[in-house]
Amino acid sequence: MKGQTIFFKNRPKIVAAAAVAGPKECAGVLGEYVDLALGDDMFGEETFERAERKMLLYAARRCLEKAGLSAERADIFLSGDLLNQIISASFAARSLGVPFLGIYSACSTMSEGYLLGAALVDAGYVRRAVAATGSHFASAERQYRFPLEQGTTRPPQSQWTVTGAGAAVISRAGEGPVLTCATVGKVVDFGVSDVNNMGAAMAPAAADTILAHLRDTGRESSYYDLIVTGDLGALGSRIVKDLVWEKGVDISANHVDCGEIVYRVAEEEFQGGSGAGCSAAVMNSYIYEKLTGGGNIRRVLFAATGALLSTVSSGQGETIPCVSHAVAIERED
Amino acid sequence: MKGQTIFFKNRPKIVAAAAVAGPKECAGVLGEYVDLALGDDMFGEETFERAERKMLLYAARRCLEKAGLSAERADIFLSGDLLNQIISASFAARSLGVPFLGIYSACSTMSEGYLLGAALVDAGYVRRAVAATGSHFASAERQYRFPLEQGTTRPPQSQWTVTGAGAAVISRAGEGPVLTCATVGKVVDFGVSDVNNMGAAMAPAAADTILAHLRDTGRESSYYDLIVTGDLGALGSRIVKDLVWEKGVDISANHVDCGEIVYRVAEEEFQGGSGAGCSAAVMNSYIYEKLTGGGNIRRVLFAATGALLSTVSSGQGETIPCVSHAVAIERED
Repeated sequence: MKGQTIFFKNRPKIVAAAAVAGPKECAGVLGEYVDLALGDDMFGEETFERAERKMLLYAARRCLEKAGLSAERADIFLSGDLLNQIISASFAARSLGVPFLGIYSACSTMSEGYLLGAALVDAGYVRRAVAATGSHFASAERQYRFPLEQGTTRPPQSQWTVTGAGAAVISRAGEGPVLTCATVGKVVDFGVSDVNNMGAAMAPAAADTILAHLRDTGRESSYYDLIVTGDLGALGSRIVKDLVWEKGVDISANHVDCGEIVYRVAEEEFQGGSGAGCSAAVMNSYIYEKLTGGGNIRRVLFAATGALLSTVSSGQGETIPCVSHAVAIERED
Repeated sequence: MKGQTIFFKNRPKIVAAAAVAGPKECAGVLGEYVDLALGDDMFGEETFERAERKMLLYAARRCLEKAGLSAERADIFLSGDLLNQIISASFAARSLGVPFLGIYSACSTMSEGYLLGAALVDAGYVRRAVAATGSHFASAERQYRFPLEQGTTRPPQSQWTVTGAGAAVISRAGEGPVLTCATVGKVVDFGVSDVNNMGAAMAPAAADTILAHLRDTGRESSYYDLIVTGDLGALGSRIVKDLVWEKGVDISANHVDCGEIVYRVAEEEFQGGSGAGCSAAVMNSYIYEKLTGGGNIRRVLFAATGALLSTVSSGQGETIPCVSHAVAIERED
């Protein structure tokens, strides 16, 4: 580890990725790229929580299938989600039957999964790791905010939790873009306590980790074709660009936020998408396609951000601590 | 990885461990071994949740201090806890200021932390990892069961969530018992849905992992001076011994459960202690002392178990999926 960054020497690769998303999400760009575009956000289940779990399991199984593997041939499943006690991940792990390590960094869970998967594969402890996460608008709303039935008005700074899931198979053998290094985030808290303004709360964590990553690797921001954040939304994206600019780094030309691109502008989702499923679905479909499609996107820094609050911490008057883990994903050819 | 087991080749060691526990816990054997025996389970804070967080932070800082390190010299903090969105760990990480990866496997979080810490240190990604977890009786009761003020009667199969926390510094440099290998658990669900009978729910997961560990390593159960489970309690301990016995393995002579030993029998805590803090406090004080004290405890298999339920999953009629991660800790002299 140099500073906060781990370097992988044995070229762990994302050999397959898969994603599923809800109808609202698939009305936008995601619809063309996901493996499964749901026509109904219940996914044939009786509760939102079971639908969320089913999406997560679908994404995990689908990426294994695309890698030509059965579930039994995965060595480890790394997953977590936004629900209390990460039940989506735990119940999906029960169905998969693969050794399971639960992880949690809120909406940065996908990058934590890539990071730990790459580390375990790179070191030779496991051959194939599956990293996955997801979220569901309706399960998140009733857990974090209000039951949908209440019809609460949403403020303009709010984001919309993505109904979707994504998963990736990480392996040394096989072909795919390489996870070359990863930066572990520190917890950053700028004193924001508005739970409807996650983008503003999380932007400083993204800025902190992006700056640490560039410092540790000695890279310029222009080294990357894309610097992808997870779900800062429109306001948070402006803030992160400003914060790194203040430190002399310009990411305005190559920064893109999954939350900003996930919904069509016509849907008027205020600041855009959020949730662990936001970057998971976008990274494991759209961005993965761009990275592997032979186009000019060859180097991506993925710095998802997580807001580490709970309803209890907010209820007790705490501000929102945030974290951002970043992984560098690079095509070799 | 052989089967479910990862082998560490570069001798990652637990170079320091620390624990703190509440007054009820310290009335038993723990009182002589913890770094701090609380006289008041509020720990000077205004809420149970803040007290829990303060214990976790105390344990993390104290083990670093015992290792002769300042917090800044830790490369990574691996932690999780039982509260929704692991807020104890996240807020403790904010105070520590160390790169942080959130983990969650309920009451098996301590063994997941040892496992990942050993892996990251063994592979050379980080020099020093701090793994920590904890729990608080009162915060767990009101989150998982009933507010204490309600005075609900507890059934005889119930356990008492330990108020305590434990942490360890894992490093290649320095002296201490070696983490030689670790077995990642699969999620096991025997169909138990009684949230007051965690020991019975978790015992099959412990049996599954212990058997996998012995199979993968080719070791007899007698290889270990102690096979330590986390918080099965009295009933769960009997069940795990029976389950492995059915597979031809006898652990009756060397099995001990942290939940069974943590309270004095006179306290009549039904089945014993539970919670992530149970094994964290016992392992990082009493057992660590036994391992390093020059006595005849030289090889310990620590297989903590976690019940991966939430109030939502139970409320939706789900059974309790469980997991157990095991680490082998061995003195070299």
